[in-house]
Amino acid sequence: MNMKSKNKNYYAILMAGGVGSRFWPVSTQDFPKQFHDMLGTGETLIQKTFNRLANLIPEENIFILTNERYNDLVFEQLPSVTERQVVLEPAMRNTAPCILYASLKIQKENEAAVMIVAPSDHWIEDETAFSDNVKTAFDYCESNDALMTLGIKPTFPNTGYGYIEYDKASTTEIKSVNQFREKPNYDTAKSFIDQGNFLWNAGIFMWSAKTVISAFKNNQPELFKLFENGFSVYNTEFEEDFIKENYPKADNISVDYALMEKSENVFVIPATFDWNDLGTWGSLYDKLDKDDAENAIVNSKVLAEDASGNMIRSRKDKIVVVDGLKDYIIVDKDEVLLIFPKSKEQGIKQVLQNVKANFGEEYG
Amino acid sequence: MNMKSKNKNYYAILMAGGVGSRFWPVSTQDFPKQFHDMLGTGETLIQKTFNRLANLIPEENIFILTNERYNDLVFEQLPSVTERQVVLEPAMRNTAPCILYASLKIQKENEAAVMIVAPSDHWIEDETAFSDNVKTAFDYCESNDALMTLGIKPTFPNTGYGYIEYDKASTTEIKSVNQFREKPNYDTAKSFIDQGNFLWNAGIFMWSAKTVISAFKNNQPELFKLFENGFSVYNTEFEEDFIKENYPKADNISVDYALMEKSENVFVIPATFDWNDLGTWGSLYDKLDKDDAENAIVNSKVLAEDASGNMIRSRKDKIVVVDGLKDYIIVDKDEVLLIFPKSKEQGIKQVLQNVKANFGEEYG
Repeated sequence: MNMKSKNKNYYAILMAGGVGSRFWPVSTQDFPKQFHDMLGTGETLIQKTFNRLANLIPEENIFILTNERYNDLVFEQLPSVTERQVVLEPAMRNTAPCILYASLKIQKENEAAVMIVAPSDHWIEDETAFSDNVKTAFDYCESNDALMTLGIKPTFPNTGYGYIEYDKASTTEIKSVNQFREKPNYDTAKSFIDQGNFLWNAGIFMWSAKTVISAFKNNQPELFKLFENGFSVYNTEFEEDFIKENYPKADNISVDYALMEKSENVFVIPATFDWNDLGTWGSLYDKLDKDDAENAIVNSKVLAEDASGNMIRSRKDKIVVVDGLKDYIIVDKDEVLLIFPKSKEQGIKQVLQNVKANFGEEYG
Repeated sequence: MNMKSKNKNYYAILMAGGVGSRFWPVSTQDFPKQFHDMLGTGETLIQKTFNRLANLIPEENIFILTNERYNDLVFEQLPSVTERQVVLEPAMRNTAPCILYASLKIQKENEAAVMIVAPSDHWIEDETAFSDNVKTAFDYCESNDALMTLGIKPTFPNTGYGYIEYDKASTTEIKSVNQFREKPNYDTAKSFIDQGNFLWNAGIFMWSAKTVISAFKNNQPELFKLFENGFSVYNTEFEEDFIKENYPKADNISVDYALMEKSENVFVIPATFDWNDLGTWGSLYDKLDKDDAENAIVNSKVLAEDASGNMIRSRKDKIVVVDGLKDYIIVDKDEVLLIFPKSKEQGIKQVLQNVKANFGEEYG
């Protein structure tokens, strides 16, 4: 798509401050998941996400929300991005404060802005379908006071995601949301699937700057006031001092809790693309091509004997000889080798804690 | 021991030209086993062997027999060694040609020389006992026309070693040898053990320069003539050209076959030290200290859960997290990771062939 054909009012806020510790040892505090080429495609997840958004949104309108420690990684991996586009959190907070802050900056720059907020570390199969869904939402947000989200059609009763219930009677593409539901237990998740009008919450939101700021004002007046106070200095040389002083005062709440669960004007579009949050080694395994023995291999040159169902990753072209392992995660990086059953993948966070406790914080 | 107290007639020939491919991926053609710190002691095997010999033998009389490609490694790891002490094979041959060649060089330098020929990649526990055994042999060789060897008391019917049968009636420390036996089958090995007068052949030989050269002359007249022809140029600037031209013509035979199996004046001293040829990952495992779960660990920082009996090696201080593996060889180096059952360790040579065939010769 030609740059000129992109709507100058379209903006994106790319969430890139998380760590993804279940992907240890590849994902670490110094070098988290979104900055890795997890799929072995030649692009890191943030590069893939940026390029996907850039199909619809002018590159210079894509803002990266991240932590100071990842500043260099952002500029290295997204060389077209300028300092203006990188919004740094001076303190670790959940999503609401940084989204409000970035939205105010964008509104000050362009009062007519509509924007998407999206994670930087998910996998989306059909990029055209993604763009179409976002475009539909943007069109609606331009003329309606709407908080919108893309919901993923659930394929099984996953207890690790939040769910979005929409109006069952709706026959239009854009559906009114009844409620957001936190991670359910298995039976509840199963009933959601059976009811047919529940979607997975993928953390993808769309709205106009005007609407989201107004929603913050109504639902989170204190938080709103904290950041609204700085409006005059945003996008100026005085912004940094203001943010350093005030950001740490912000409540540590998610945008789901702060806005979506409390508002009436919430809408969802059931996504028409295939999605995976790449939340664990197992979900990455599911997305990757497999060899004849169902081993998923990223970067490695593997010689496998009597070894099947394994998720194998190393640095590029490393030889991995494996004999006799089934359904293992085998991940090698310079300073760490992990050989771990896939069935215990939720335990990797604990392993990381044990490694840090035994051998030092530098390994996390 | 003080330098001055060492006998200037004592010499050593350290065999350091082999590859040890069952220790792949650590041992490779470019960087074989003897140049690695296999035991994690801070010294490579050749350094340990050199220092062990230097307890009895003047350092400048220890010659290193190796291949041209390992020249730099020798000087790097044995910085006191000079060019005079490094004898390079211009072609890959079994042990007889290079031992004859080195013996002639030593005889030319010192007609009264007695010498030990020893592998550079074995493990010996009690260095004092080793020196005592060698000293006993040297004393005997100085006044007798004897080809001597140290034999290891067998602990089980190993079918991977050659055996030495000595005169059962002998009550002295030095025993006359009846015969050398190639690697036996299991039943034969068992009968050797039952008979009580069989020892493992560790490839450690002692003799005077005069005796070994005379033995070559009698038993291998052609080989003797080939190298004797160069006697006038040895230890001069013309030696290299002569050897480059003539060495490739030498028969590819072992010193066991060329001399020991054919001679009458062969004697053995049953070793009084504990020995291990470190021939496989399993034999290295046997020699190493174990953690509570019987894991043997070299260099790695290991976090093991439900993992026992494993041989784990990586570069220094690499974290290795292993969950659920039993009796595995887990060896990691920069370009190769091996995860392989200990019970199949004899298959590692074949794995190496497969890796080279699939991914290139550079991995061997």
